[in-house]
Amino acid sequence: MSLVNDQRNWFGEPPVSGYRQLYETGSLLHQERSSFQGIEVWESRPLGRMLVLDEAIQVTEKDEFIYHEMIAHVPLVTHPRPRRLLVVGGGDGGTLRRGLEHGIEQGLLVEIDRRVIEVCRAFLPSIGRDAFTHPTAKVIVGDGVDFVASHPRSCEVLLVDSTDPVGAAKVLFSPAFFAKAYDCLSDDGIFVIQSGSPLLMAPELIRVYHRLQQVFPIVRVYLASIPSYPGVLWSFTLGSKIHDPAKLDGAEVARRLAERGIRPRYYSAELHGACFALPQFLKEALESGKEHDLFAG
Amino acid sequence: MSLVNDQRNWFGEPPVSGYRQLYETGSLLHQERSSFQGIEVWESRPLGRMLVLDEAIQVTEKDEFIYHEMIAHVPLVTHPRPRRLLVVGGGDGGTLRRGLEHGIEQGLLVEIDRRVIEVCRAFLPSIGRDAFTHPTAKVIVGDGVDFVASHPRSCEVLLVDSTDPVGAAKVLFSPAFFAKAYDCLSDDGIFVIQSGSPLLMAPELIRVYHRLQQVFPIVRVYLASIPSYPGVLWSFTLGSKIHDPAKLDGAEVARRLAERGIRPRYYSAELHGACFALPQFLKEALESGKEHDLFAG
Repeated sequence: MSLVNDQRNWFGEPPVSGYRQLYETGSLLHQERSSFQGIEVWESRPLGRMLVLDEAIQVTEKDEFIYHEMIAHVPLVTHPRPRRLLVVGGGDGGTLRRGLEHGIEQGLLVEIDRRVIEVCRAFLPSIGRDAFTHPTAKVIVGDGVDFVASHPRSCEVLLVDSTDPVGAAKVLFSPAFFAKAYDCLSDDGIFVIQSGSPLLMAPELIRVYHRLQQVFPIVRVYLASIPSYPGVLWSFTLGSKIHDPAKLDGAEVARRLAERGIRPRYYSAELHGACFALPQFLKEALESGKEHDLFAG
Repeated sequence: MSLVNDQRNWFGEPPVSGYRQLYETGSLLHQERSSFQGIEVWESRPLGRMLVLDEAIQVTEKDEFIYHEMIAHVPLVTHPRPRRLLVVGGGDGGTLRRGLEHGIEQGLLVEIDRRVIEVCRAFLPSIGRDAFTHPTAKVIVGDGVDFVASHPRSCEVLLVDSTDPVGAAKVLFSPAFFAKAYDCLSDDGIFVIQSGSPLLMAPELIRVYHRLQQVFPIVRVYLASIPSYPGVLWSFTLGSKIHDPAKLDGAEVARRLAERGIRPRYYSAELHGACFALPQFLKEALESGKEHDLFAG
């Protein structure tokens, strides 16, 4: 048995149900407490620089493309002609950047914490790249809930790129917000929210799924493997008014990617269909509303 | 930042590229050194009892079904009528057990380490269940390489359920063994080998893929999320003489599962097709033979 007793520095989020992942870390590049949360930037050996908010890894240089491609490309490819994109959260700019690749006319990012944007632009510029200064993009520092509520029918795609449903972000997972999100979308609009680990946080995912089903006629959970998040396997939940992403033909996905000139590193036409295929135990847990017992704490 | 300084016991395999996973552990139930390896059985909070060979977690009570269903059902469903199954390794019995569900006439398990079988039957009986005493099953304690080499055309499906390609198991990943495995199969036979983490051990996976391509006309990599293995995302590589698993229709998969009376907890007709869809960077790494840079150590 190999206990953790070496002399290296290891960063780990607080354990969940007796499970945790560790990353060998180098320097602490930045540390502050903003009005909303603790903000840290660490060097790590496996994943490059990491943004940590209130002890939770949000994004890393090396694997950010997986999360950002999957939260943005799945809904934006599903929509035949997305013109207006709204991102709530996502102050690192990675989601907005992938969204802008779809040739949209107006990309808005509403981030509540100005310091997250500033720290990311200073320490993690490779993530957002030119998204912040893109001619069709606009960054608003403010409350995403208020913004969504006061902008009905204002976008084809609305993405919630937030921290997990505790603390300040909890409201973004509420039935009231999901109803506002529905109203904020065009008649053929699509909503996506990151919905946590299907292994370690299954109750939260099941709750999001059922709440979105109260609002949207089409609701789909999809998965991606993201090494910087607890349990690696990660979920997104999509609500749609008309377009069913799981029924989009692979050839049409490939056609839209080519037409828009997008060449992703994780997402692909093949993965578009495959990411909606859930492990049987998870499918049954979502349908029944009962938690599966894997990793039950 | 939360360093690992609490007073609980944590089990972790040795780190790979500055990454590791930890599991909160209880008692050490068994510990010995067999002629082949160190063998331990630990109680863990997240995954129940764990079998550890030479510091590497092989199988746990809670998530064994994922690995075993995926190594066995994918090839066995792909074959229209598998009659003879050979498992090399897999002394816990979990692979053989899933294989026998396909109504095969002869299920052989060749495990080199008698003590692995005995320890698993004593401490982890829920994994192999009645596989060891099943009327069509036979367990042989011996060298799988010799057995495969001396039994040409003896099975429709050959599964290598081994430790990773270091030490004693290294020979099971060699070109010479793959050629023997081809000969050991019937004219429509299918071979599967567990091929490690596509994130943390990509060079090994790429090597297996190219070596199998020298031998089998059809080679496919497929993935599953297994929380007890490093990086969670795990790969299997399949070599086939005639039947292409990726071209098998979902409806036909469902029909074969129903006909054979199999109701898996992870695998499903939907997942059968989806598990072959690889992240784009991995697909490109396999095709080019060059390592992708994610997690490059």
